[in-house]
Amino acid sequence: MANWNEQAGNLLTKLRDKKPLVHNITNWVVTNVTANALLQIGALPVMAHAREEVEEMVKAAGALVLNIGTLTPPLVEAMMLAGKRANQIGVPVVFDPVGAGATRLRTETSRLLLRELSIAILRGNSGEISVLAGLGGEVKGVEAVSSGGDRGEIAKQAAREFRTVAALTGPKDYISDGERLLVVGNGHPLLAAVTGTGCMSSAVVAAFAAVTDDYLMAAAAGLAAFGLAAEHASATSRGPGSFQIALSDALYHLTGAALCAGARIKDA
Amino acid sequence: MANWNEQAGNLLTKLRDKKPLVHNITNWVVTNVTANALLQIGALPVMAHAREEVEEMVKAAGALVLNIGTLTPPLVEAMMLAGKRANQIGVPVVFDPVGAGATRLRTETSRLLLRELSIAILRGNSGEISVLAGLGGEVKGVEAVSSGGDRGEIAKQAAREFRTVAALTGPKDYISDGERLLVVGNGHPLLAAVTGTGCMSSAVVAAFAAVTDDYLMAAAAGLAAFGLAAEHASATSRGPGSFQIALSDALYHLTGAALCAGARIKDA
Amino acid sequence: MANWNEQAGNLLTKLRDKKPLVHNITNWVVTNVTANALLQIGALPVMAHAREEVEEMVKAAGALVLNIGTLTPPLVEAMMLAGKRANQIGVPVVFDPVGAGATRLRTETSRLLLRELSIAILRGNSGEISVLAGLGGEVKGVEAVSSGGDRGEIAKQAAREFRTVAALTGPKDYISDGERLLVVGNGHPLLAAVTGTGCMSSAVVAAFAAVTDDYLMAAAAGLAAFGLAAEHASATSRGPGSFQIALSDALYHLTGAALCAGARIKDA
Repeated sequence: MANWNEQAGNLLTKLRDKKPLVHNITNWVVTNVTANALLQIGALPVMAHAREEVEEMVKAAGALVLNIGTLTPPLVEAMMLAGKRANQIGVPVVFDPVGAGATRLRTETSRLLLRELSIAILRGNSGEISVLAGLGGEVKGVEAVSSGGDRGEIAKQAAREFRTVAALTGPKDYISDGERLLVVGNGHPLLAAVTGTGCMSSAVVAAFAAVTDDYLMAAAAGLAAFGLAAEHASATSRGPGSFQIALSDALYHLTGAALCAGARIKDA
Repeated sequence: MANWNEQAGNLLTKLRDKKPLVHNITNWVVTNVTANALLQIGALPVMAHAREEVEEMVKAAGALVLNIGTLTPPLVEAMMLAGKRANQIGVPVVFDPVGAGATRLRTETSRLLLRELSIAILRGNSGEISVLAGLGGEVKGVEAVSSGGDRGEIAKQAAREFRTVAALTGPKDYISDGERLLVVGNGHPLLAAVTGTGCMSSAVVAAFAAVTDDYLMAAAAGLAAFGLAAEHASATSRGPGSFQIALSDALYHLTGAALCAGARIKDA
Repeated sequence: MANWNEQAGNLLTKLRDKKPLVHNITNWVVTNVTANALLQIGALPVMAHAREEVEEMVKAAGALVLNIGTLTPPLVEAMMLAGKRANQIGVPVVFDPVGAGATRLRTETSRLLLRELSIAILRGNSGEISVLAGLGGEVKGVEAVSSGGDRGEIAKQAAREFRTVAALTGPKDYISDGERLLVVGNGHPLLAAVTGTGCMSSAVVAAFAAVTDDYLMAAAAGLAAFGLAAEHASATSRGPGSFQIALSDALYHLTGAALCAGARIKDA
């Protein structure tokens, strides 16, 4: 019987030891907070999106994050180049389909990337992932208005459809590789009052994926670590501003032992 | 006799209830802080600037923010597409002419957008707005060095010239629809020590414009709400860094009743 | 015998008095924090990168910052245009070669800018600068993995090679004009846990370069001011999030007298 929480703690220790480079092609809104979350969890972030350099940059990386929050065609072209190179050399790709379902451009770009690339982990909200898996759901801007049904089932079906680990985040996070289904209970409501926390969680998940090839575990460990840091942060917060600052502090101070003790990862 | 402060409080209550989507085509510097200000005042922010999706995205929005702080021709093209669609379907457009007067590109782009689009609210500093209205004024970078005269008069004349509500912010804010002239006394000097607070106030104004078609009132209520939150924030700040964080917390906690009690909106 | 610390304090007083405009063509990750650092040290920041306006914008500026952290060919073209104009009219150019050595695009772009422009101050980490000077060194993402030898020697040789002031930052900062070599002892380890602090320090150095044509002194004063503010900030920090906020507060409150008393600039 797997002890998920203990494995998560061990992975964080390994991550802090290895300090993997995480290459991000992400949106304008979250570049700074994403880079900080990565630094603070123990990884080295790099943001690079020029078509002329992404294939070279990704070669040094332990993981690649693709995030379409403010996509344009040149950015998607860079994502495709970096993703294909990452696939060739075995660098795991985490894809965050921000706003899929809100516009055709976002939905179609997401489907393109999911079809053309091998995605290790697909991290999104319930609306985005259910839209992509053809299970209904509704997205307004970048928020899930409704999902297409049971969230664990959506994760499982999306994982099968796209041959990936699907990580569907919300009040509880559901993570599936198509067979197994894990639930992560860590988190805090203030995460929804700060912009980019979903994107930050995708990047943290990528940092974990850089130190294990068990991507189900990486997604669960990353989301548990991020959610537990949020719980710690909430203790000293007076609102979303002070919460965001405390979240940086908490990510930085989170230890493998604290994650082992505080993670709430369970089989669904 | 209108009770502006009471109306402002009621509008904030309505805004928090409706949670309108606010679509932003804005500058690189303020994307994160703008999205946070919108979330925290009770709206749903979305940043989307690809020509391929802006017309579709704006259809779901309650208001559109156009901000030329780091303009390039493709961004201006996206602004024009989104703005024209917004005009067709009755989505109010808030325009922030960042740095108009500092370069020809900024001045001419501002005039183009003001001429080709129907702008519900023009929000800028005294230099930007007086330059655009042909009343003198001087802008260095993105700061007003001098305005072209009496600030209330500039607001009134700009409103007439551009058939809009002009909201000229500074130590006191002057807001006019060309006939009426309101003054908002809320605010705090530390706002000038944090980058992007003008841009944030434009976005907050847009959130109010999404829940009323009285744009004079929306501008006054938005600026009073933002300024009052700044006053609250200053109480626990040790400088511009801690002020910015406290401002996020204060925006989040601001209630309709507090705004009604604390707003200082008056007829000039 | 020069009293570097006293000169640094006097320069800060002058900077706060003159409020020079600093024009930045910089990367997506640090736009907001850079603009805030500039405002808080007493300068006026402007971010502008459209080819159509950079030559006009830089004419009003006291210094120009070029930073290739998220470079693309159009951004490099804008850097070249702004840099050439700055050179013509005597506006000092500070160049931050973020990630030079990590990809060919970054290395070659850095060499191009160093060859085609007259750079007043080259500010980078030991890996970036030693790679550019052909002295070895290794860069992974945007972090120095190793430098090519003695850090003071690298600064001196890079200064000679590129006829500039080279400012090589790290636990101690080494600054040389090819003849003289200064060491700045101010700083704090938490700077390495916050993204963009190197970029922020380049911008602060540019603000000082806007008020003196002694660029060796400007670089030393800017790095001492930034490092001293970091020391002040660390006293009230619980981790990198609260440190970053306290750093903004400390930059804002730093006086010429405090810098004179707290700077640790020495001849090497």
